[in-house]
Amino acid sequence: MKTYKVAELLLSEDFHKEVKVNGWVKSFRANRFIALNDGSTIKTIQCVVDFEKMDAALLNKVTLGAAISVIGNIVESQGSGQRVEIQVNQIHVYGEANPDEVSKTVLQPKRHSLEFLREQAHLRPRTNTFGAITRVRSALAFAVHEYFQKNGFYYINTPIITGSDAEGAGEMFRVTTLDPSNPPKDEHGQIDYKEDFFGKETNLTVSGQLEAEVFAMSLGQVYTFGPTFRAENSNTSRHLAEFWMIEPEVAFCELDGNMDLAEDFIKYVVNYALSNCEEDLHFLEERLLNEEKSKPQTERSEIALMEKLRFVTENNFKRVSYTEAIEILKNSKPNKKKKFKYLIEAWGADLQSEHERYLVEKHFKCPVILFDYPASIKAFYMRLNEDGKTVRAMDILFPGIGEIVGGSQREERFEVLREKMAALDIPEEELWWYLDLRKFGTAPHSGFGLGFERLVQFVTGMGNIRDVIAFPRTPKNAEF
Amino acid sequence: MKTYKVAELLLSEDFHKEVKVNGWVKSFRANRFIALNDGSTIKTIQCVVDFEKMDAALLNKVTLGAAISVIGNIVESQGSGQRVEIQVNQIHVYGEANPDEVSKTVLQPKRHSLEFLREQAHLRPRTNTFGAITRVRSALAFAVHEYFQKNGFYYINTPIITGSDAEGAGEMFRVTTLDPSNPPKDEHGQIDYKEDFFGKETNLTVSGQLEAEVFAMSLGQVYTFGPTFRAENSNTSRHLAEFWMIEPEVAFCELDGNMDLAEDFIKYVVNYALSNCEEDLHFLEERLLNEEKSKPQTERSEIALMEKLRFVTENNFKRVSYTEAIEILKNSKPNKKKKFKYLIEAWGADLQSEHERYLVEKHFKCPVILFDYPASIKAFYMRLNEDGKTVRAMDILFPGIGEIVGGSQREERFEVLREKMAALDIPEEELWWYLDLRKFGTAPHSGFGLGFERLVQFVTGMGNIRDVIAFPRTPKNAEF
Repeated sequence: MKTYKVAELLLSEDFHKEVKVNGWVKSFRANRFIALNDGSTIKTIQCVVDFEKMDAALLNKVTLGAAISVIGNIVESQGSGQRVEIQVNQIHVYGEANPDEVSKTVLQPKRHSLEFLREQAHLRPRTNTFGAITRVRSALAFAVHEYFQKNGFYYINTPIITGSDAEGAGEMFRVTTLDPSNPPKDEHGQIDYKEDFFGKETNLTVSGQLEAEVFAMSLGQVYTFGPTFRAENSNTSRHLAEFWMIEPEVAFCELDGNMDLAEDFIKYVVNYALSNCEEDLHFLEERLLNEEKSKPQTERSEIALMEKLRFVTENNFKRVSYTEAIEILKNSKPNKKKKFKYLIEAWGADLQSEHERYLVEKHFKCPVILFDYPASIKAFYMRLNEDGKTVRAMDILFPGIGEIVGGSQREERFEVLREKMAALDIPEEELWWYLDLRKFGTAPHSGFGLGFERLVQFVTGMGNIRDVIAFPRTPKNAEF
Repeated sequence: MKTYKVAELLLSEDFHKEVKVNGWVKSFRANRFIALNDGSTIKTIQCVVDFEKMDAALLNKVTLGAAISVIGNIVESQGSGQRVEIQVNQIHVYGEANPDEVSKTVLQPKRHSLEFLREQAHLRPRTNTFGAITRVRSALAFAVHEYFQKNGFYYINTPIITGSDAEGAGEMFRVTTLDPSNPPKDEHGQIDYKEDFFGKETNLTVSGQLEAEVFAMSLGQVYTFGPTFRAENSNTSRHLAEFWMIEPEVAFCELDGNMDLAEDFIKYVVNYALSNCEEDLHFLEERLLNEEKSKPQTERSEIALMEKLRFVTENNFKRVSYTEAIEILKNSKPNKKKKFKYLIEAWGADLQSEHERYLVEKHFKCPVILFDYPASIKAFYMRLNEDGKTVRAMDILFPGIGEIVGGSQREERFEVLREKMAALDIPEEELWWYLDLRKFGTAPHSGFGLGFERLVQFVTGMGNIRDVIAFPRTPKNAEF
């Protein structure tokens, strides 16, 4: 007999057919109605038991959380709330779940705090919320691959362990096999990294961009999608020590093309979730509405989750130069009334999260692409504009999330790049290969990085980034 | 004017239309014929220059490796070897390539050793061989995602940094932010990992399996596809310190279902490459034939690359128990003539690469699934058979590659698992959450791991695993 998924059975028209289905018990009411879920959908299928014909000892084992298989006939449901149900002929209990023990876990069907759910990250995927997040995250990840592959990009796996710390995107984790208590020393009494596994000091990557540029400058259009790391002591709802990043890189592409790509890409993946995860998003929308009921009116979302997602896919992102943004911020109410923690006084200021939120949430009320930032606050590899003081950088800011994309047109001119590296004391011996790309057929090229968890946060409406990844890694926490 | 990819233009029927194309010069013959490649295909498009009408100084810059854009009209080619070509109206040189410098690189169009190509891993993607490998690898990666998503699996990102070293799959890299010269010590004079970033000793993961089981036991069918690490000093053509692994995990699935899944999955992705990478595979097949010409007849492949791939997709994998395999090996010629380095004398012996190769390449001459191994040579989480001495393990062996898949049905019985962990001194405090999965609705479940680079090796016919990943990480080597 074929085993079916709950999602399949809920769509079935094969009434009276005998089927088999496996799953976990979500509830068992009146010794008669088992709600069974197998993860294939947020919904359960109702399995109706004729308890007079079943072994009572067996039915006693059918409790919340137990794993069972059911054989029975698909019938039209008499009750309200479901179209089909299963008239049970046979039950097999694979694994019981002791009700006393279950009552101490997140399996107990009541509202649990997100903190408690994180402590039981091995059981939280069985809850409706985390089942839904996991399915949406998986769909978004596939949409990322599908978008790029359809558009002629090649997927590249750039290295996780890197001998370079030149990019300066953040603090790094050291990777080593040296004896920590008694590391080998050189003749100057310094740690002798020549003895380490890779023969030099190595770290976990903060970005695959420089390596992705290698492949853009040979295969034209490429993307990475892999883990990246920051060893920063940031205990916020927006930061993880280990997160997944998507980094496309395109040859013969300038900043405008880069903005077009980022906007088109984000709209595609959000649309994919809207088309493929309707039930899960509907559940997450309701969850968010309930969560926000306890908040003051001013902190609640102005529009519901799915409407917000549709808004993003249907409207153009607003493109604003850094210089224009500074003017808007200088003349803004919170700046004049000194409500910003960091007041905007002059061109050149680095924008803080409060400024980005003002622009996106109060002023423009839509996603914003800021571009042409001061060179002094951006990375060495960004292309210098003719004005000599700004670079072809772009950041995309999203409501509720802040920066979701950071990108730029890359400096393709050998001499300009070399001078920039020298000014910042970046050793040429370390990035000789990166400079080489500017020697053998250089060309304009651009790319960006998108933090995947921030995208998942935006689409699921989850407020804390720790709730959109399986097992979050944060300061003092590497459990599971 | 729209910019086209070379791959699109080669299929074009829009004769006399003016088009623009960007790329790198692969050759410039007779001051007349530019072969241009942009990575979208292994092929080049011929751009025909009327040198009498062009600026000579400009044409002087059109040398091997230069990045240019060409505007011209698509026409039917008069020459042999191509269907269409471009009659050039205009050339722009983005980036030159000094011929003297080019001559020292792998861009020089002649046969380079694979070792030299690895030293210039930042330029090797511009060669035909590494362009082809990169495109095939990308296609295979997408096929992996497509297969699982089509079949109702969810993609899970399991942690890269792990606080657990219980799995014992191999030596691990330590991840730390402690000062290596002067680490904090506790009252016993030991390194105080409470002061480290995560508040305990952490390592790079060797497998996401245990965490994937969490999601299988809630969402039913899941897979991982991410980097894994081994800090082993193995300088072989089959080992990397950093490699990508695919690990599906399925609830309510026993070993037979696991074998079916692995076989169906491998056939799907190989078929995907055959359907989508024909030109690249054709090139790689020719490359392999040429490479093998220098080998003695006995070491050459019996069949060509694409025929070998078709053979795998069209034939059943042979399923053989470990016990049967030992009988075959005991009675084999190389065992009787003492040609094996490790002679097979009795049941219980661990199989070495030479034995696996004999079974696959000499005896069965097809992919082989070995199953039901002695418990003593396999991991703690594999399900114990009724005989009390074998476990429900399976390895898939491929010709030329050896082990490409390792998997098992997992031990789902709480008490059996706990005893096994105790016998192996695996602390319950560390895997409390893994044991918990057996307490709250346990069920039979199975999964496997497939080393992605070994799959890419098999499909591309490359002999050394360092040549199928962008920037290989091996002992004493973390360049780029």
